Amino acid sequence: MNAKPVSHTDLIAATAIEVRAAIRSGAYTGHTAGLAAGKLQCNLAILPERYALDFLRFCQRNPKPCPVVGVSDTGNPALPTLGRDIDIRSDVSKYRVFRDGRLSEEVTEISDEWTDDLVTVALGCSFTFENALLHASIPVRHIETGLNVPMFRTNIDLVPAGRFHGQMVVTMRPIPEDQVAQAHEISRRFPQAHGAPIAVGDPEKIGIADLMQPDWGDAVEIRAGEVPVYWACGVTPQNVLLDAGLPLCITHSPGHMLIADVAEDAETTILKQ
Amino acid sequence: MNAKPVSHTDLIAATAIEVRAAIRSGAYTGHTAGLAAGKLQCNLAILPERYALDFLRFCQRNPKPCPVVGVSDTGNPALPTLGRDIDIRSDVSKYRVFRDGRLSEEVTEISDEWTDDLVTVALGCSFTFENALLHASIPVRHIETGLNVPMFRTNIDLVPAGRFHGQMVVTMRPIPEDQVAQAHEISRRFPQAHGAPIAVGDPEKIGIADLMQPDWGDAVEIRAGEVPVYWACGVTPQNVLLDAGLPLCITHSPGHMLIADVAEDAETTILKQ
Repeated sequence: MNAKPVSHTDLIAATAIEVRAAIRSGAYTGHTAGLAAGKLQCNLAILPERYALDFLRFCQRNPKPCPVVGVSDTGNPALPTLGRDIDIRSDVSKYRVFRDGRLSEEVTEISDEWTDDLVTVALGCSFTFENALLHASIPVRHIETGLNVPMFRTNIDLVPAGRFHGQMVVTMRPIPEDQVAQAHEISRRFPQAHGAPIAVGDPEKIGIADLMQPDWGDAVEIRAGEVPVYWACGVTPQNVLLDAGLPLCITHSPGHMLIADVAEDAETTILKQ
Repeated sequence: MNAKPVSHTDLIAATAIEVRAAIRSGAYTGHTAGLAAGKLQCNLAILPERYALDFLRFCQRNPKPCPVVGVSDTGNPALPTLGRDIDIRSDVSKYRVFRDGRLSEEVTEISDEWTDDLVTVALGCSFTFENALLHASIPVRHIETGLNVPMFRTNIDLVPAGRFHGQMVVTMRPIPEDQVAQAHEISRRFPQAHGAPIAVGDPEKIGIADLMQPDWGDAVEIRAGEVPVYWACGVTPQNVLLDAGLPLCITHSPGHMLIADVAEDAETTILKQ
């Protein structure tokens, strides 16, 4: 891991394979927003096999916050349906290792943690539909202003499975009133990336007290003529995994996603073999 | 099970709940095509828990033939995300019981087979997108002519998982050449029901020798100006399960589907709690 460091700017025109290679070599440890444009980026949950069936059931029952886009064989660090050469032990720029439901460490590779018992679940991420919104000239405030998207706990109960349960986390984007229907229609086309909004308008209806006090990320301005629109968020499964208190669980660090070779607007997230 | 028999015609205006009640009581044992219009109908695979994780991985890797729309808790005959009162031991009008990969019997309820070890997986079915095609005035030949859809083995390899592997089975519908693009666009909107076509045109490209000799179902006429269009078929997972030779596996009988309370065009197949 003594590769010469490269910057986000160095990688801006790189392919998904090139970005993963830079990450694998240790040359790049930064966030992945804007890299390998047009490719699917994924949230990550790595957990012992004995919890995998319940976690997949949980994801199936809560498809908007937890859209499964890839599942590894037990003990196998490859994810061939997402990318031909993926090694999940090294191909994410920053990981979080949780033990008994508590953050233990943040690391840039997990070879030492890997065992024959682990299953990787890759989940869709909001970058996909945000790109589609921008493409349709629908403004995305936190991107315009260089902030992180505001995220909020809600009172929306998730459908439980085994030890996995809790409430949904949502992201909020202010959308001009006359573009809300279009934003709904566009994001609905991406079931692998949280789909259509969960709610529109009054934050109290979904248990949010103050839109200027997000639980994660940054507060963003809501301008005249805009309404707050809420989408299911990939932080949901991370919280649920944390609360489940598994002996071991590894996720990506926020913003440090797995980059797949699959196009983000492909019909399925399965790479043609 | 001494309920007074009812016919398909008697049930044509019944709700999903009423149809399931008629099936549960033993009053109705026929096919479900055209019943509970607008509701999702499902293929069924019931298998021992120790195979469930691999089967769910298999379905995730082959989402077009195997779109998962519901998964039960282990040993629990309910499917609350598909319908509030579903009891999978009695709510399907005809089941096939396979032992060691061979058809053992065809029955109208499976209470005697049920154990604490079984997991139910419900999979989407082509009724959903066929209704959408008909709605858009795209002809569906086998429905027009009162036949079963023609189904064919292909040479398209499935992505394996554990003991589950094989080739895709497809259905074929002749579509007027100028409506093929529209048929593609419409069915793509239903990822929970096989999505967009797998192939269009030349059957030999996907390993079909003769369109007039389907492996299952009925041959249908292809008229001048029409092209054969191929969609992934729910018989695929049934074949794969059979080949896997599980000690026990229960499916619905062809055409005798589980009827859910979820609208077939809903964004997700999860009933609002």
